[in-house]
Amino acid sequence: MASVTEKRSPVLTPQAVDFPRWYQDVVDKAELADNGPVRGTMVVRPYGYALWERVQAEVDTRIKRAGAENVYLPLLIPESYLQREADHVEGFSPELAVVTHAGGKELTEPLVVRPTSETVFGELMARWIQGHRDLPLLLNQWANVVRWELRPRLFLRTTEFLWQEGHTAHATRAGASAYARRIHLQVYREFFDDVLALPVHVGLKTARERFAGAVNTLACEAMMGDGKALQVATSHEMGQNFATAFGITHTDAAGRRSLCWTTSWGLSTRVIGGLIMGHGDDKGLVVPPVLAPTQAVVLVVKDDDATVAAAERLHEQLSAAGVRAKLDRRTDLGFGRRVTDWELKGVPVRLEVGPRDLGDGVVTLARRDSVERDRPTVEAAASLVPPLLQRMQDDLLRRGRERLRARTVDVTSTPEAAEAARSGFARIPWRTLGVDGEAQLAQNAVTVRCLQRPDGSLPEADDEDDLVAVVARSY
Amino acid sequence: MASVTEKRSPVLTPQAVDFPRWYQDVVDKAELADNGPVRGTMVVRPYGYALWERVQAEVDTRIKRAGAENVYLPLLIPESYLQREADHVEGFSPELAVVTHAGGKELTEPLVVRPTSETVFGELMARWIQGHRDLPLLLNQWANVVRWELRPRLFLRTTEFLWQEGHTAHATRAGASAYARRIHLQVYREFFDDVLALPVHVGLKTARERFAGAVNTLACEAMMGDGKALQVATSHEMGQNFATAFGITHTDAAGRRSLCWTTSWGLSTRVIGGLIMGHGDDKGLVVPPVLAPTQAVVLVVKDDDATVAAAERLHEQLSAAGVRAKLDRRTDLGFGRRVTDWELKGVPVRLEVGPRDLGDGVVTLARRDSVERDRPTVEAAASLVPPLLQRMQDDLLRRGRERLRARTVDVTSTPEAAEAARSGFARIPWRTLGVDGEAQLAQNAVTVRCLQRPDGSLPEADDEDDLVAVVARSY
Repeated sequence: MASVTEKRSPVLTPQAVDFPRWYQDVVDKAELADNGPVRGTMVVRPYGYALWERVQAEVDTRIKRAGAENVYLPLLIPESYLQREADHVEGFSPELAVVTHAGGKELTEPLVVRPTSETVFGELMARWIQGHRDLPLLLNQWANVVRWELRPRLFLRTTEFLWQEGHTAHATRAGASAYARRIHLQVYREFFDDVLALPVHVGLKTARERFAGAVNTLACEAMMGDGKALQVATSHEMGQNFATAFGITHTDAAGRRSLCWTTSWGLSTRVIGGLIMGHGDDKGLVVPPVLAPTQAVVLVVKDDDATVAAAERLHEQLSAAGVRAKLDRRTDLGFGRRVTDWELKGVPVRLEVGPRDLGDGVVTLARRDSVERDRPTVEAAASLVPPLLQRMQDDLLRRGRERLRARTVDVTSTPEAAEAARSGFARIPWRTLGVDGEAQLAQNAVTVRCLQRPDGSLPEADDEDDLVAVVARSY
Repeated sequence: MASVTEKRSPVLTPQAVDFPRWYQDVVDKAELADNGPVRGTMVVRPYGYALWERVQAEVDTRIKRAGAENVYLPLLIPESYLQREADHVEGFSPELAVVTHAGGKELTEPLVVRPTSETVFGELMARWIQGHRDLPLLLNQWANVVRWELRPRLFLRTTEFLWQEGHTAHATRAGASAYARRIHLQVYREFFDDVLALPVHVGLKTARERFAGAVNTLACEAMMGDGKALQVATSHEMGQNFATAFGITHTDAAGRRSLCWTTSWGLSTRVIGGLIMGHGDDKGLVVPPVLAPTQAVVLVVKDDDATVAAAERLHEQLSAAGVRAKLDRRTDLGFGRRVTDWELKGVPVRLEVGPRDLGDGVVTLARRDSVERDRPTVEAAASLVPPLLQRMQDDLLRRGRERLRARTVDVTSTPEAAEAARSGFARIPWRTLGVDGEAQLAQNAVTVRCLQRPDGSLPEADDEDDLVAVVARSY
């Protein structure tokens, strides 16, 4: 059966023509986000925010399962707080927004709009932790942060963004290290695999790429449709740096006062950029079913009573089966335009209910991630959707894994790595590349995304033998 | 059976001795919130935030049921935006926090940290609304806002607070008015009745008390334990004021360009203050079961294998029955101290599992809102909890209604109203009180909380005959 959608001219710049322009088109046409009145700021529109709410729900469940509790800390931070940890202030200084006036007066001490709440967590942990019973202290926050951005790009780099930042304190280095790994693998990697269906390279950052003040940074690096890397989550071991700066100490069972070991870890609205570029195609977004705020849409093709009744029944059956379903009754809009709209938004399954199909006792069922179309009976249609959603989720993950594998090339020299990074990722022995090779690649905007073991797993430390550097261009 | 808790001295200042101090003690001892490093700011601690998450979930569900969609707008707003609506800027000017420097430079135009996103919603609505098909536009945002506060009090008045603000645009005044009422009654009042079990007076604000820029403000006014009023939610009809200031217009079906009618409505972290003062007693918080993040706690009295196993089984049974349950195995802490702690936190039901009771085949079941204790069999205990939670919820609402009725006195003169407001609310005919009487009461810090019909229902307009003014002292 020929699809009505095939005849229309593209509403998006094709990816192959201009990938960045395609990205901007999707953000705009799928109504995900808009520019705010202040340069670099972002308005997240209803559909974009619905995606973020689903990200939040899935990540939050996993964070709570890992034992951390949510808190909310103040937006405004005394400037002096940031100066307590030397690397930290140096890392953030050029990005800060500063409040100098409030309540109609000039303030005696300027206040910084939080670029992260790291320092306030430090201060509070020092206050809250007394004995070993208070450890580990496992906290998380969902909030907005501000980092002045000179080259903004919606979702990817914005002056204000939304994120979660976890902060924990432990009695031992091993405890802190184990917890950072747990978050990294059981919260972040699991989310990328099981929800976003976007497999990632996990590994350690090199000293050059590490977070300011961290002794170890764990990264998740996803591959976008153009072969570039997107860092989608990081987890840091802060050693005792923040504990020293803020006096985070505990009294152990033997009555000795000692410094704690802290971690921090975060994931932001940037993952929506990853969703767009990781799965999108020339028709728009492709949203994995587990993430999708709307998993199936039932379209009323023509506004007659029998058609509307059949569509409503289908919508009810889907909702009853636990499918997040929507009914599209906008028959005053052209059918083709509505199809395009749901394709742009990447809704996994479309059920089109029209009088002609109904005459044959069938409806049309289309999946977003392929050109497959089916004409099940009206009676059977709803029951087909849940297994189809599961199949689509599996297919997306499998295709993501294949792409990541196919476009990650093992090389043995720095020039080969630079060459391979023009179209994808390269893996090169870290001892072959070294910090000199890293600096050399950086001149062509190719960076070491992470260091991993030869089998792709997460190393314990960056001085292990046989580590492999994953290098790529990146967002 | 004598309770171990009865013997201990109070951990809180009794309400009758000093109500404000009792409030501060509860916030502190129940670990709800802490002061932030900047005066007037608040750190919401894990238990306080868990309560807020439950508020959010319940209110958000109702907002979505009313058809509104969530968005996220930028924190920083150009100063010029606020100046577009005269009443608006005048209302907020003394409360603003202003960013003058960012990215290492002085800004050419100062940026205001949003005191509300009203103006940005205005700007966006003007951009997004074209034809009548785009109406009504129903949006909501969960976010932080900043209003410089000179006399801060945790949860009640803080320089930064969390809230939701809804903003909608409609084709007609009647449409806007009906939607504001719908939100007010079906989202807010329903939430206060069915979730918070805290009945409210609903009504219209007088011109004196109305939101800056609104033509009509609908309020929910709850009664606190000391007889003072707390405004816990408001809904505004903005008429065409914001539509005029921001050019929010639509083309109607006949092709005419006309101004929209807008509404806004909000509820904030202040409701946590309402929860504390509306239900709390000398032992701490009393959390209604529907709201409670933890509905039942199972305490292991003594750390022996059989006791722990029985407690774990009970905890599992409760979770399986859909009860939000926790297991308290902290037998290294004194039992009495743990009981005090759960009482402070207002957890509705406590199940104490100890070897002596187990020897008799029973456990001890205590409800937070009364001194009632029961000793059901181990087998029956879990199944008793869901109906008990329902009964407690009903009891709390019933008691709240009784208090509101008993402490709201009908009076016929301004001096009587002033007298009655010393210990509760007074209702006085609005035509008797008038704006002069209102001004007179205000000198003694007694204000008109709202105007309602004689039967307590929400009027259509403030010029209806027979309106009654509810007056009280307030937070």
